[in-house]
Parts: sequence; structure tokens; C-alpha cells
Amino acid sequence: MTALYDVAGIGNAIVDVIAQCDDAFLAKEGLTKGSMALIDPARAGTLYDAMAAGIEASGGSVANTMAGIASFGGKAAYIGKVADDQLGRVFRHDMKAIGCVFTTPALAEGPATAQSLINVTPDAQRTMSTYLGACVELTSADVDPEIIEAAQISYLEGYLFDPPEARRAFAKAAALAHGSGRKIAMTLSDSFMVDRHRSALLPFIETQCDIVFANDAEVCSLFETDDFDAAVKALAERCEIAAITRGEKGSIAASSGQLYEISAYPVEKVVDTTGAGDQYAAGFLYGLSQGLPLPVCGQLGSLAAAEVIDHYGPRPQVNLRELAAKNGL
Amino acid sequence: MTALYDVAGIGNAIVDVIAQCDDAFLAKEGLTKGSMALIDPARAGTLYDAMAAGIEASGGSVANTMAGIASFGGKAAYIGKVADDQLGRVFRHDMKAIGCVFTTPALAEGPATAQSLINVTPDAQRTMSTYLGACVELTSADVDPEIIEAAQISYLEGYLFDPPEARRAFAKAAALAHGSGRKIAMTLSDSFMVDRHRSALLPFIETQCDIVFANDAEVCSLFETDDFDAAVKALAERCEIAAITRGEKGSIAASSGQLYEISAYPVEKVVDTTGAGDQYAAGFLYGLSQGLPLPVCGQLGSLAAAEVIDHYGPRPQVNLRELAAKNGL
Repeated sequence: MTALYDVAGIGNAIVDVIAQCDDAFLAKEGLTKGSMALIDPARAGTLYDAMAAGIEASGGSVANTMAGIASFGGKAAYIGKVADDQLGRVFRHDMKAIGCVFTTPALAEGPATAQSLINVTPDAQRTMSTYLGACVELTSADVDPEIIEAAQISYLEGYLFDPPEARRAFAKAAALAHGSGRKIAMTLSDSFMVDRHRSALLPFIETQCDIVFANDAEVCSLFETDDFDAAVKALAERCEIAAITRGEKGSIAASSGQLYEISAYPVEKVVDTTGAGDQYAAGFLYGLSQGLPLPVCGQLGSLAAAEVIDHYGPRPQVNLRELAAKNGL
Repeated sequence: MTALYDVAGIGNAIVDVIAQCDDAFLAKEGLTKGSMALIDPARAGTLYDAMAAGIEASGGSVANTMAGIASFGGKAAYIGKVADDQLGRVFRHDMKAIGCVFTTPALAEGPATAQSLINVTPDAQRTMSTYLGACVELTSADVDPEIIEAAQISYLEGYLFDPPEARRAFAKAAALAHGSGRKIAMTLSDSFMVDRHRSALLPFIETQCDIVFANDAEVCSLFETDDFDAAVKALAERCEIAAITRGEKGSIAASSGQLYEISAYPVEKVVDTTGAGDQYAAGFLYGLSQGLPLPVCGQLGSLAAAEVIDHYGPRPQVNLRELAAKNGL
């Protein structure tokens, strides 16, 4: 069966609140630079009160990736849970506006749409404090077989390993995808998530994931090692394709015993690294869905990441298909 | 009595939704480039559906100016009406976070917080379609004498000439300010507003306004002429200080028969002109409140305008006090 979608994503549907801060603010608020911490509504209230004025933008790691894939011209679909509130309507609008199919019903009652309070330091690092709200109400029932079975690749957000019901949704998605001869990709999302769920995550990767995305901290956390090369090798042995990002050092794509080093695109001034990994995955997955060689997939990822770190906000502000064409990709 | 506030503003409390579009989109939606049109909730829904994915940022012309004044280090207060909803809380947070006093109670029941749907074309022009929502519920009761009487200058948003009750709020503010030996400033906001209310606006300017801000289109509309110089002269005769902006051609400050030409600051790449006039007013009013000469007030305005058109969003992303110091102002 030909695929109706290039990539379908399942993730936390989040609206980002992005503000500038200094290192002293992170220290005072007890925040670990570059990390993602889960917070409850009370903490979200006090932290927001303390934050600088910001902008709001639809976010959510895998949702950002889907936006990137759509911007490359790929056919994208998304599954995630928002509430029936103003920010939920913003999130839904933005997904549809970028051309991504998003039909998961909004939560009628209960918690608000998720918000990630993102503090960006002058070194462009983002520190995220996320109130998951409606996201954790995602269930297997939301995993629409008509989407997963019709997608070349289904892409799972590691953050969803936290809520048990969402993990069941992942199992359903993997069964549906593989039953239809499709691929499952996953991002490890966050080294603390990896640390929390290592024992469940490793078998899930080995048995259910064809393609795995991670950054250096996440892959090292997964194998509890400081030896980056060993961690990359260990991950590559456990899946078909591994793609590991390393910030300005570029990325590595590994498959069938081959390693490809991919350099980062130069950026004049890095403003906000929010969404860098998400857009790398967008370029990479879009390339895979078009049957491009792995090094080219990696270059598309690098290009999309370079675009997004050049401005505030986690999604592309230019058409990535045109940007790729301009860059000869 | 020494002033507790440098500037107090009364305006439409709006959250902006900013998205990119092309000229064909404006034509298809029947929008006049560079203008501000008022829309009802139904039209807001259909226009939003048609718009590209965007970002949300607190806006509102005079609120943007107050944010700029606070960023210069000025003591700012704001009066405006939001609803008790998610976007209202975002607006309130952003005002407080930037250091602007904002105590107007939220509307408990009724319309939602105002939204301005802003479409930005590749030439960086912004076209605004505004659903006023809770804004039009602003009444004289919201004009807090403790704020107006304690502010060196009270700054009124011309857009508020539309709702009759808000116009009564202006009259109250002017009486309070002048009764305490303070000044009233006003921005003409929009040439269509000027056209709608010319006959009421002219006497209000002549009898109640000490300082008037306008752009070239607005001042020409006020006096129904194409002769810019004549319009500037006519405005200058009717108030103590007139400040007229002309985009990349800079601005003119007029007072006591003297005209000062102020050039615009060079900008590498203009991204989004939203907020340019608002930030010009911020620099100008901050300068006035510090007793600086008019040409310096204008230069502060030009500098703040140059900062804001360099990025999406209507408020400064850098500290304007530091930016001014760097530029020897």
C-alpha cells in the first residue's frame, strides 16, 4: 500500500512560553540549564510569575518535527492531546496551518493545554519547565489506525514514556505500524527521561524501534557511560538507523555497521536553541521518507536545525523546501 | 507633587497573533496592506483559519509603548481591559514582568481578551485585523485617579476613540491630568480611525492634548490634505509638541514654531514593522519625561523603533536603556 503520510508523529501537544533570562535566574529558580523538568500547575504559576515577558508559540518536540517535515513539503500527520481552551486552539490552528493533519479530539474537561516555560540564557541555551496538563490524557484510543497504518514512518516522542497510558499508546502504534510493514522512529527526548525509564526503554528500542534519535547526553545516559563512541556503537547495534546530534559538532548517522559524520551548518548568531533537535529530526526523517542516502538525510537535518536556532521559537520561519533547494539539497 | 510614574498609558489590551503571508493572501482576504481593521468574532474565526501558523505576543499599541518605556528604565503604568482567560493572563504577566504597573481588573464575564491577527508580508509591512473583545468594556471607572494624577504624562491610544465609553474615559483622564498639572499625550493610531472620528478628534486635540503622535498618513487624514508639510504645521499649531513619523524617512518633532528633522536608525534587515510607531513613542515620551531636548527624544524614538522592526513581535527584545547607552544617548 502506498503511504498517505510520509511521517506521522505522536507527542506532547504543548504551547511554549519563551522568555529571556540570565544564569542567576536559573540558579535562583533551581533550574538545570539545558534540561527539561516536569512541573505541576502550582509551580507553573510561581515560575511564570517570576519569568520575564515572553512570546507564545506552538511547540512540543515531535509536533515541531512534524511542522518541519510539512515545511519540507512532506505529508505529515500528528497525534497529541490539547484541551478545549485558547492555547489548545492556537496549537491546533498552527498544526493545520502548516499543513499537518491533526484530528485527535481535544480533551473536553480536565487540565488545560500543556505549557512549557522556556527560559533562554544569553548563550542561547534553553531550559524548559513543562506542565503537561492535557498531554497526559493521551490514550491508546487516540492512536488512530488510519493514520499509523498509512504512514511510512511513525515517530514517537520519548517524553511520552512518562505517562503509563501514553506508553500503551506507543505499544499500539508500534504494533499497527509493523503489522502494516511500516517503520517506527523514536527520539529519546531528554537524558533525565532516559534515566527514569532506562529498563523499559532499552527493550522497547530493541524490539519496537527501527530508527532512533538522540543527542550525546541521551545516548550516554541510555548506556550509562561517558564513552560517546561506545554509546553510539551500542545504540547502532540495537536499531536499523541511529542518528545522534552533538550541537555545534554536528551529528552522526549509523546504519548497518557504517558511521557517517555530518557537520553542522554555520550560523551567524545562535539566538535560541529551542527546537534544534526537533528540526534535525524533521530534516532527517523527511530525507528518509524520500529514500535519500543517510548523509543527505543528516545534512537536511543540520540545515533545518541551523534555521531554527537563528530566531526565538521552535519551528521554522522560512519554507524549508526552498531553503534546501537554495543549499543544493 | 513629584511624579510616581513617568508615563501612564490607556489603551486597548491586545494579544497579537503574528503570521507571515504574501500579497495574494491580503488580496484574497480583502485586507488593505498596512492598515488596522476592526473585525467581529465570526470574521476573526474565519480569518484565523485562513492564516499561516504564527506566534502570540502581548501587543496593543500603547501597551507596547509602556513596555518600551519600562525597558528604557522609565516608571510606567497601564490601564486597559483584558478578560479573565489564558490570553488575558499572558497579557497581564507580560506587563508586570517588564515592570509596568497594571492593576485594571479583568472583565469577569463577557467577551474574550482582544486579539489582533497580524499578517506580515515579505516587505515587512504589517496588516492588522483586530477583534476588540474585552477592550471595549473599558469604562471611566477603570481610569484610576491614583495613576493618572501621579503620572508626568498620560498617553492615550487613538484606537480607543471608537468605543464611546472609552472616549468618556479619555475625558476623565484629561481632566484628572490637567487638574494635577500633568500632561496629556495621544497617538492618532490609524488613518481610518482619524477619518471616522475627525470632527470629535480635532477639538479633543485642541483642548485636551499637549503632545500628539501621528504618522504621515494619519496627520494628512486629520487635515484632509495631501500636503504633508501643511498637515504638520496645522497639527503643531494645535498642540504643544507634535511628533510625526515617516517610516524610513525618519521623523519630525515640532514645538513652539520650531521643526526638528530626525533621521531613522539604519536597520540591516527589516523583518516586521509591527510596533515601530509604538516604540518611537516609547523613546520620545521617555526622553520627554527625563527633560531631554526634543531632537534627543526623537533619536531615542528612532533607536527603539529600529530595534523592534528587526524581529517579529511588537515589543523590544533587548534592554533599551543599555541599547541607548551603547549608542551614546
